[in-house]
Amino acid sequence: MQTKYKITYPSSRKIYVKGKIHDIAVGMREISLIDQTSVVVYDTGGAYSDKNIEIDITQGLPRLRELWVENRNDTQELPAFSSGYCNRRLNDKSLNDIRFPVTHFPRKAKAGQNITQMYYARQGIVTPEMEYAAIRENQQNEALGIVSHITPEFVRDEVAAGRAVIPANINHPEAEPMVIGTNFLVKINTNIGNSALSSGIGEEVEKAVWSCKWGGDTLMDLSTGNHIHETREWIIRNMPVPMGTVPIYQTLEKVNGIIADLSWEVYRDTLIEQCEQGVDYFTIHAGLLKAHLPLTRNRTTGIVSRGGSIIANWMSLHGQENFFYTHFEEICEILAQYDVAVSLGDGLRPGSINDANDAAQFAELSVLGELTLIAWKHHVQVLIEGPGHVPMHKIKVNMDEQIAKCHGAPFYTLGPLTTDIAPGYDHITSAIGAAQIAWYGTAMICYVTPKEHLGLPDKEDVRAGVIAYKIAAHAADLAKGHPGAQVRDNALSKARFDFRWKDQFNLSLDPEKALEYYKAGHLGEESDHCTMCGPNFCAMKLSKQCNEIP
Amino acid sequence: MQTKYKITYPSSRKIYVKGKIHDIAVGMREISLIDQTSVVVYDTGGAYSDKNIEIDITQGLPRLRELWVENRNDTQELPAFSSGYCNRRLNDKSLNDIRFPVTHFPRKAKAGQNITQMYYARQGIVTPEMEYAAIRENQQNEALGIVSHITPEFVRDEVAAGRAVIPANINHPEAEPMVIGTNFLVKINTNIGNSALSSGIGEEVEKAVWSCKWGGDTLMDLSTGNHIHETREWIIRNMPVPMGTVPIYQTLEKVNGIIADLSWEVYRDTLIEQCEQGVDYFTIHAGLLKAHLPLTRNRTTGIVSRGGSIIANWMSLHGQENFFYTHFEEICEILAQYDVAVSLGDGLRPGSINDANDAAQFAELSVLGELTLIAWKHHVQVLIEGPGHVPMHKIKVNMDEQIAKCHGAPFYTLGPLTTDIAPGYDHITSAIGAAQIAWYGTAMICYVTPKEHLGLPDKEDVRAGVIAYKIAAHAADLAKGHPGAQVRDNALSKARFDFRWKDQFNLSLDPEKALEYYKAGHLGEESDHCTMCGPNFCAMKLSKQCNEIP
Repeated sequence: MQTKYKITYPSSRKIYVKGKIHDIAVGMREISLIDQTSVVVYDTGGAYSDKNIEIDITQGLPRLRELWVENRNDTQELPAFSSGYCNRRLNDKSLNDIRFPVTHFPRKAKAGQNITQMYYARQGIVTPEMEYAAIRENQQNEALGIVSHITPEFVRDEVAAGRAVIPANINHPEAEPMVIGTNFLVKINTNIGNSALSSGIGEEVEKAVWSCKWGGDTLMDLSTGNHIHETREWIIRNMPVPMGTVPIYQTLEKVNGIIADLSWEVYRDTLIEQCEQGVDYFTIHAGLLKAHLPLTRNRTTGIVSRGGSIIANWMSLHGQENFFYTHFEEICEILAQYDVAVSLGDGLRPGSINDANDAAQFAELSVLGELTLIAWKHHVQVLIEGPGHVPMHKIKVNMDEQIAKCHGAPFYTLGPLTTDIAPGYDHITSAIGAAQIAWYGTAMICYVTPKEHLGLPDKEDVRAGVIAYKIAAHAADLAKGHPGAQVRDNALSKARFDFRWKDQFNLSLDPEKALEYYKAGHLGEESDHCTMCGPNFCAMKLSKQCNEIP
Repeated sequence: MQTKYKITYPSSRKIYVKGKIHDIAVGMREISLIDQTSVVVYDTGGAYSDKNIEIDITQGLPRLRELWVENRNDTQELPAFSSGYCNRRLNDKSLNDIRFPVTHFPRKAKAGQNITQMYYARQGIVTPEMEYAAIRENQQNEALGIVSHITPEFVRDEVAAGRAVIPANINHPEAEPMVIGTNFLVKINTNIGNSALSSGIGEEVEKAVWSCKWGGDTLMDLSTGNHIHETREWIIRNMPVPMGTVPIYQTLEKVNGIIADLSWEVYRDTLIEQCEQGVDYFTIHAGLLKAHLPLTRNRTTGIVSRGGSIIANWMSLHGQENFFYTHFEEICEILAQYDVAVSLGDGLRPGSINDANDAAQFAELSVLGELTLIAWKHHVQVLIEGPGHVPMHKIKVNMDEQIAKCHGAPFYTLGPLTTDIAPGYDHITSAIGAAQIAWYGTAMICYVTPKEHLGLPDKEDVRAGVIAYKIAAHAADLAKGHPGAQVRDNALSKARFDFRWKDQFNLSLDPEKALEYYKAGHLGEESDHCTMCGPNFCAMKLSKQCNEIP
């Protein structure tokens, strides 16, 4: 297994911007241009992209937030893990070879203490996490004189109102704080994870680091195969971005895949296990009720959410209400003790154009709105998950309904895919929808890779999915007028017009790909035209000449 | 050079639907499904996708429309070509090796006759071309009981009103008629063509056939290198879709790349040369005026249209008005004699986000509106070209302005690209914009390949560009509610839910890619799950189980 990882970008170096309220240093990437200027861009690479830091994934990342959490003095380090399952795994010698080598005992809120970012925000406190996120959002705006509404206090107010989420489990101090909300940069989530048919731990860690390299803001580990606990430990300890899971997946593995054997007790233990490992947000399909099932019977593609289909089966088998729903208060009590956010899953998202915006989907969304208020009562941060497959003319109503029903909690959508007819290209069918819904206000878009519907993504699929979604997110940032969003476009276009090819590539989302394509058709190193037009037909060259005619 | 070409699709056969007014047979692709049903889809493959027809590109395609044109009795076959340049090329023995082996003498309107589809439509005539296009738009709608507004008479009325164009040069009888207009299926154009730095004739023909395979509705040959005349002849004689060019490119080659030496006379001869070869539409940058040039001086990326930058230089060098503009009536007189459509070029389209929707761009658009009325006076069909690089929030106003200024002539846009920061992925940045502007009413979208800004596309780039644009066009068709557009989505989603993998692939835009991705992660031939979720976590499988619980 590869143990040393670095993230590199051409002509780039890691810089740090100091906080003004807290003693923090916020990492960013500075791209140096040929003309001695530079452009600073958002960096999701964490310590991996700092050439002065050696990272050995058998040791894990530096624990950036550890002191911040300790200094608040409202949490305690436990002497042991609270989950029975977790302890059995730790004591199982047959797992020694695949277990992450370092053990960090978990932290938890002291009795009677509220420790979530939402709670602090509601008390008027600007935490280091909030200031960190605010500085990241602005990059070099201050230096460029760009007026931005995003101050640490603004982040606090948005978190307090529930309009923004800072996923920041106290047991994942390795992650850099970031903020998800409609008034911030659009974020993208990537999914990795093995299935019973696929890959090992090393491969998953590699994909996770790769996701951070290309710009994934958060990462969900959707593993469903063997060694979920151990795989997750490796990933979390090495992840500079918040990580999410769908805990019912592991719960189902614990009962050997037998849905009828699922129970609140096993699920509860899984939640605690994962809270103490450091998962930052849980997808929980608590809004899918027994009463909704008849609404799905005549659908073209039924229930296409894995978690949704599992709990639907459980309800049908037992004739009982969804236990995520009936135990939702208890779930919130657990999550609040670690500051794990809840991402309310859309178990009834449409899986085909024909099922978009149907009664099932919107009935569930109403319940998600109710659950939002319950979570907020516990100061638990909330994301609302959204579709799915939706034709363009039906996208906006999804955003409008979400706003109307979910009290301003950030929307987090999968795509949506705007047609069903292009398997193999669903990063594109969905980037079209994702750009639109993000422009309308969706805070985070979950990537789709070219392998969607066909198989698990490999490394190149992860890259293709991340870049497609960085494009969608950035297009939305431009359309929303995010402060400073256009700085990079302007710099790249200026470099293009000036035939500074290297600057053009270095400023792009994927410098390696741009250079590769350029070289494929190019004869020399750098020139004042490309093979697209040849020397006599380059419009930009001609345009410059035109300007020089007296 | 490869001389035999076939276009094949899995489980598909070519079917023909007979006309009711004219003796015509409209080719379509029927995809057979495992359950004995079938789905009929639009086919741009022409005779190449009919397994019963042998095509040898040294002989050219069957001349489908030859008799239709002859039977109208308003055109004459000329005894020789009218262009001096063309005749010199024909008599140049050094070109014998690369010349297309068969010579068809050109047709032209008889003196005093109007022969354009627009003229016929205005006389109330439904031509075979109009009926052919109408039948193509509907595929199996009648059989499925789907009500469609698209009748041959509707096509006629839209063409008469200038809201639709049927590009159908009488000298390109090999092309299947198709209609471009906001009330029809969204069409996609692909660009091929060599540059001074690149490829040969065989490669360009191969790319052209490849474009038709994946679904390109029209094709522009943007060659700028050697042997433009001969390359174009090979392509036209073998193209089942309408073909466009930008005649100023070849004109510039004729004056050895010296812009100052361009003249109306050389351009005029080039127009006639290309009209008689069978080019179906010309991009002419007649709306870019001297008065506009100062508006471009402070742009981030100046003038990025090749044709626009050429004529801008010419105007600056000579201090004269654009000769496309001053000679526009004569241009229309020439085009009318062959039924070549004019695509009014947007020489001032923005080449960067920062230049979007600026004064230069909209000033030119106003002139395009004026020119539209002049062309229509001559019964010349008109397309209006549009941008370019435009952030999402500025896209709709492009469509609105085009409608306001251009009298309903079909809009034909390049993308638009919704951000500048992703060279190497501009098929995606632009598919996002193209889907939106097509939904708003743009009739045809011009593809962008991954190599945009970096080099000339190769075969795989053409495929990637075409599929991205088929996705954008189809997403727009769904959003616009085009009659029958959702039939294919529904069939594919049903196949997906039923685990009919082969049907799912065969119904997709790129069956080969879907199968390749599926196989990459798959163990057996076909099963009730894929590697994405593994056997226990397949939502669709669980959803089916759920429905079976009593």
